[in-house]
This record gives sequence, C-alpha cells and structure tokens, in this order.
Amino acid sequence: MKKIAVLAGDGIGPEIMAQALKVLTAMKLPFEYEEALVGGAAYAAFGHPLPKEVVELAKRSDAVLFGAVGDFKYDTLPRHLRPEQAILGLRKALGLFVNLRPAVCFPELTAASSLKPELVSGLDILLVRELTGDVYFGQPRGKRISPDGAEEGFDTMRYAVPEVERIAHVAFKAAMGRNKHLVSVDKANVLETSQVWRDTMIRVSKEYPEVTLEHMYVDNAAMQLVKAPKKIDVMVTGNLFGDILSDEAAMLTGSIGMLASAALNEIGQGLFEPSHGSAPDIAGMNIANPLAQILSAAMMLRYSLGMEEEAVRIENAVKTVLAQGYRTGDIWSEGCKKVSCSEMGDAVVAAL
Amino acid sequence: MKKIAVLAGDGIGPEIMAQALKVLTAMKLPFEYEEALVGGAAYAAFGHPLPKEVVELAKRSDAVLFGAVGDFKYDTLPRHLRPEQAILGLRKALGLFVNLRPAVCFPELTAASSLKPELVSGLDILLVRELTGDVYFGQPRGKRISPDGAEEGFDTMRYAVPEVERIAHVAFKAAMGRNKHLVSVDKANVLETSQVWRDTMIRVSKEYPEVTLEHMYVDNAAMQLVKAPKKIDVMVTGNLFGDILSDEAAMLTGSIGMLASAALNEIGQGLFEPSHGSAPDIAGMNIANPLAQILSAAMMLRYSLGMEEEAVRIENAVKTVLAQGYRTGDIWSEGCKKVSCSEMGDAVVAAL
Ligand SMILES: CC(C)[C@H](C(=O)O)[C@@H](O)C(=O)O
Ligand SMILES: CC(C)[C@H](C(=O)O)[C@@H](O)C(=O)O
Repeated sequence: MKKIAVLAGDGIGPEIMAQALKVLTAMKLPFEYEEALVGGAAYAAFGHPLPKEVVELAKRSDAVLFGAVGDFKYDTLPRHLRPEQAILGLRKALGLFVNLRPAVCFPELTAASSLKPELVSGLDILLVRELTGDVYFGQPRGKRISPDGAEEGFDTMRYAVPEVERIAHVAFKAAMGRNKHLVSVDKANVLETSQVWRDTMIRVSKEYPEVTLEHMYVDNAAMQLVKAPKKIDVMVTGNLFGDILSDEAAMLTGSIGMLASAALNEIGQGLFEPSHGSAPDIAGMNIANPLAQILSAAMMLRYSLGMEEEAVRIENAVKTVLAQGYRTGDIWSEGCKKVSCSEMGDAVVAAL
Repeated sequence: MKKIAVLAGDGIGPEIMAQALKVLTAMKLPFEYEEALVGGAAYAAFGHPLPKEVVELAKRSDAVLFGAVGDFKYDTLPRHLRPEQAILGLRKALGLFVNLRPAVCFPELTAASSLKPELVSGLDILLVRELTGDVYFGQPRGKRISPDGAEEGFDTMRYAVPEVERIAHVAFKAAMGRNKHLVSVDKANVLETSQVWRDTMIRVSKEYPEVTLEHMYVDNAAMQLVKAPKKIDVMVTGNLFGDILSDEAAMLTGSIGMLASAALNEIGQGLFEPSHGSAPDIAGMNIANPLAQILSAAMMLRYSLGMEEEAVRIENAVKTVLAQGYRTGDIWSEGCKKVSCSEMGDAVVAAL
C-alpha cells in the first residue's frame, strides 16, 4: 500500500485534482490517499500556507500530488505567509533538489504554439532544474541599510560543489537515456556561482564520455530556445535560471495546460504538479484543463512509485482523448469537441 | 566639436564599425573620433581587456561607439581578463545605469522571426534594463568553503532604493512618451531584492499617475514575451533579468542583426552597441550585417549628442535600404539582393 499526499491547493487546483484522482481511482491502484489544505486555502483555514502537519504528511508519504497555489486575495500578505511558500517549503523540507520539466509539443496542438509549426512540431525538451539551492535559499538575505545610508534588499546566490554534482549526475543520466547531448546553462562570464557550476559540470562530464556537454550563457539560452528549440534535448541549470527558462520552454509548445513536472529527492520521494498556475480567474467554473494534472499523476507513477507501465497507460489515454478531438477551452480549435474539466477527466478514464 | 570614442573590439567588431564610421563621416558631423583597442584585442596587445587609458578616453568623450567583444581564443582566460570585462568595466566606470534595448520587428523582416507573423508584425518593445547594480556587481562575491566543508561559489544580489528609483524614473518617462503602460519585472515572490524593487516601483508610480504599472514575475515575463509580445510596450527590470529578457525579446524579432542598444549615465554620456555579439566565426569575411552598428550610431546621436534629426536621417536610410531589397546573408531571403558588409554600408550612405 503506497501513501499519496493529495494537496490540491487554490484556484483551479481542486477541480483539476478531482480529475486526476478520478483517473487514478479508475485504475484501482494500491494507494491510500490523504488530502490536506495547502497554499491560500491553508492560510485561510489555519493562518499558514504550509502547516506543520502538511509537511509531516508529505514526509511520511511516498509521493505528493500537488495542484496549484495562489490567488489574488493573498497577494498582499507578507511573503512568508503567501501561498507560494507552500511549494518552496515542501521543496526544502523534502530535499526535492531535482526538478524535471518536460516541454513537449503534442502533435494535435502544434498549431497552438506562437512559433511556426516547423520549429516546434515534435519538440521534446527535458529541462532539469536544480530546486533547493541558488538565490532561492541562500543566506544571508533580507533588508538592510547600505554603507551609504540607503535601504537595500539583498539575497545570496550560491552553489556548493556537491549540490552541483548531484544535479549534474541526474542530468547526464537523463542525457544518456535520450540523445546524449546536454546543454548546461549558466552566466559564468559574470557570476562566481556560475563558474563553480561550470567547472563542476565539466568535471562530472568525464564520467559520461558518451555525452556531449555544451555550455550556454543564460541570455543566449533564452535566445536559442526561441530561435531553434528543437536543437535542444536535455538542458540543465540552476534554480533561478531554471525557473525562467523552463517557463519559456513550456510556453513555446503552446500547450502549457498540458505540461506536468516532477520534483524529486535522493530517496525517490517526489512532488508532482502541473507546470501551469492556479488560474484563480477561472476557478470553480469547471472549464480548466485537467490534463497537466493527470499527466503529473503519470509522472508520479513513473518516478516515485516505479509503475512505468501504469504511467504509460495514463499517457496513452491522454493521447487518445486528444486524437478523439476532445479539448478544453484553452486548447480548443475549430473542428474539435469542446469539453468541460470534468468531461475531460471522464474522457481520459474512458480511454484508459 | 564632440568627441567620440570608437571601440570596435573583436570578431566582426572592426568591419561593422567601419561601416558605421563611413555613415557618420558621410554626414559631415562636427565630431572628433578617437579609436582604441578593447576586449580581446586589447588583451592581446596590452595584457588587459580594458586598459586604463581606454577608461580615461571613454570618460573624456561625449559618447562611446562600441562594436563587440569576445573570441574563442580568450574563453579560457581567468574571468577578470576576459573580453566581457571591457564592457562590464566601462558600464561601472562611467556609471551607465540605464540600458535601453529596443526590440523592433522591421516590416520587411517579419518572416525571419520564429514566431507567426501576426504575433510579431509591428512589434516594438522598449526594454529598460538597470545596468550597474544587481548580482552583476554586488559584494561580497567569490569562492569560499561553506560551513559543511564544501567549496562554493557565491554572489550578492542587491538593489538599494535610490538605484531602483533612478531607473524607475527613466522607465516611467519612457512610458509617458509611448503607450503609458509599463511592465516591471521582478521575482518578488521569492527574492528580497525584488521586494525592494517592487515597493520602489509602486512608490515612484505615484508621480506618474497617467502610466499604468503592471508587475510581472520574471518566469511569467519570459512566457508572455513568447505568447503575446505585442501586448508589451515598455518593460523595466534589473540587470540580470534584463540580460535574459532583452535577448529573448530581441530574438523574437528574428532580426537580432538589426538591433542596437544604448547605455546611459546621469550626465548623458552613453555607450552604444549592437545587441548581437562579436560572431568570431564569420569575422574578417565581410559578410556581417553592419545595420545594428549603424543604428547604434543613430542612437548615439539621439541620446548622447542631442541630434534627433540626424538620428532619424540614419534610421530612414536604413529603412530605405531594406525597402530597396538589400540584405546581408543573415537576413537574406528569396528575391532580395545579397550584399556584403561593406556594400551594405555603401548602400546606407547612398540612401542618406
Ligand atoms: C511559485 C514560485 C515560488 C515557483 C518558483 O519560482 O520556483 C514557481 O514559479 C515554479 O517555477 O515552480
Ligand atoms: C557580455 C556580458 C557580460 C553582457 C551582460 O551580461 O550584460 C552581455 O550579455 C550584455 O547583455 O550586454
């Protein structure tokens, strides 16, 4: 019996999570599900976006299925009480240092991309983002008075060699299983942190002689993703650059409502969530696209629960519903069948 | 008599600079030009990418016309001797805190964009990047042994309120002269530095009640640039995010060989350079596109020398040669006349 923490969160989180659970339940997997509030919903109920009990629940679970957090109403809270702290806190508490963010262009949805179809059809990038280091968590940080008397905000960007090593191994192994070409992104022409990153990547690359390692400055990477995304197969980078580039890459596909992501730690626990946000503007309307949430469940089966076959079964069901022409509003185009969030969930169950 | 420091740099720098000088000379402007080596060329000659004499020259000039720096041969030098230090050093020495990076899609070149023509035709974004603060220059930085004994690289991200205020005023003024809509980009959901940035932007916005201020997280900004770039008019951000987003925005246009940029200080001195790099792979072949360098000269006339009319004259000449069908290889398409770098320079002179 595996234990799954189900953290639906805010906005459209609960309604898309309901569809993912519908799919998992239909598969009759030996899972025990425990739901809890997180993000704005937890703040509203308990005064904190990530109550201690939720951290405990996540720690004793085999995997966390996460929806999305955030809502306009919480935008003015002090940072440590804002919904995003739930996700940052879980990453830190569980040591989820690996973030896998695939940017895949689904054949049926190629036309939804901003890019010309020939540049994105068949696009399949795996972005590997380090998730527990960098300026996200570096200390010291805060506000202070600078020597010349002005108020300033400051943060510490940092990477220690072992942190870079472990994400490097993940990325090189991923590249071994794909096209054996790894792009490492940094800003080593300016940052000391990046110099350590680059030196470490080069050192680790010796253990993977079959993989070609290419270095790209982050500004150039942001350009190459637009110019010729299909030249990129696996890309590895730090927490901050990964935040920016993974979203850019996701948007290239035109179907961000379809993209899932995984955050993993050293013992195989993981947190799985859609790449899109909580979309509070359409929450409760039963029109959100649940496919990224459903595909997050597939990633969970693959990466934390060792159920590759079951993961593929879900992914194939999603392919089937696309081929059948079912579309939620965000990916709808002329000639397709527009369905609601729950109808899409039903369609996936039917296609299993 | 105005004094112009001419720093052609490396790679294609000298050949494109020659075309810009050809254009300026043809206009018989009351300028005294002084050339100097910079970047790899200066390192090769004097052992430093930015000799003191060059800093002095820049300081006593009214403007710096800059080419590009960098070459494969210098990639393995220690960072403080690498060509890029020339540009970082000049920014700091002259206090060039404003970086104006227009991303404009020229009507004749719309098809060169990776994006669908309807998404970029008429695109005209002004990205205002802060250029002397942030993690680029924050202290302390370096390598050290972390408390748990590992080697680490670290940098300090920081912004003091007055630094943000002065770039905010530049951005709001730019927005006043355009569509009165300003997008400020930060990562205030994670970074203390960004919180100070955002609070200051909000405070300064009160002085510009006609301008609508919108905040965007940097990951979202990277997405919105791909999704709907024409919704963005003026965007302001810090040094690091500006580095990434300005290159992404430039690449959206498909004609990065056409884009110029300005770096300005409080007393109106400026450094003007193409947005593209030194392209060492095609250096010396007389095939590079000189138009970004020529348009940098136009920006110089406008922003540092108060010669709006002459700036427009150059810009119109560039429009004319495009309309006449002249193209260097990078922007060439079927039916156009392929010309060399120097022929393009001649065509602009003829069109003046
Ligand atoms: C919500 C935010 C803190 C988070 C991040 O910056 O990592 C999000 O943008 C993401 O990429 O998961
Ligand atoms: C060369 C490099 C230091 C520089 C920067 O990062 O600012 C460049 O990328 C730029 O944008 O002008």
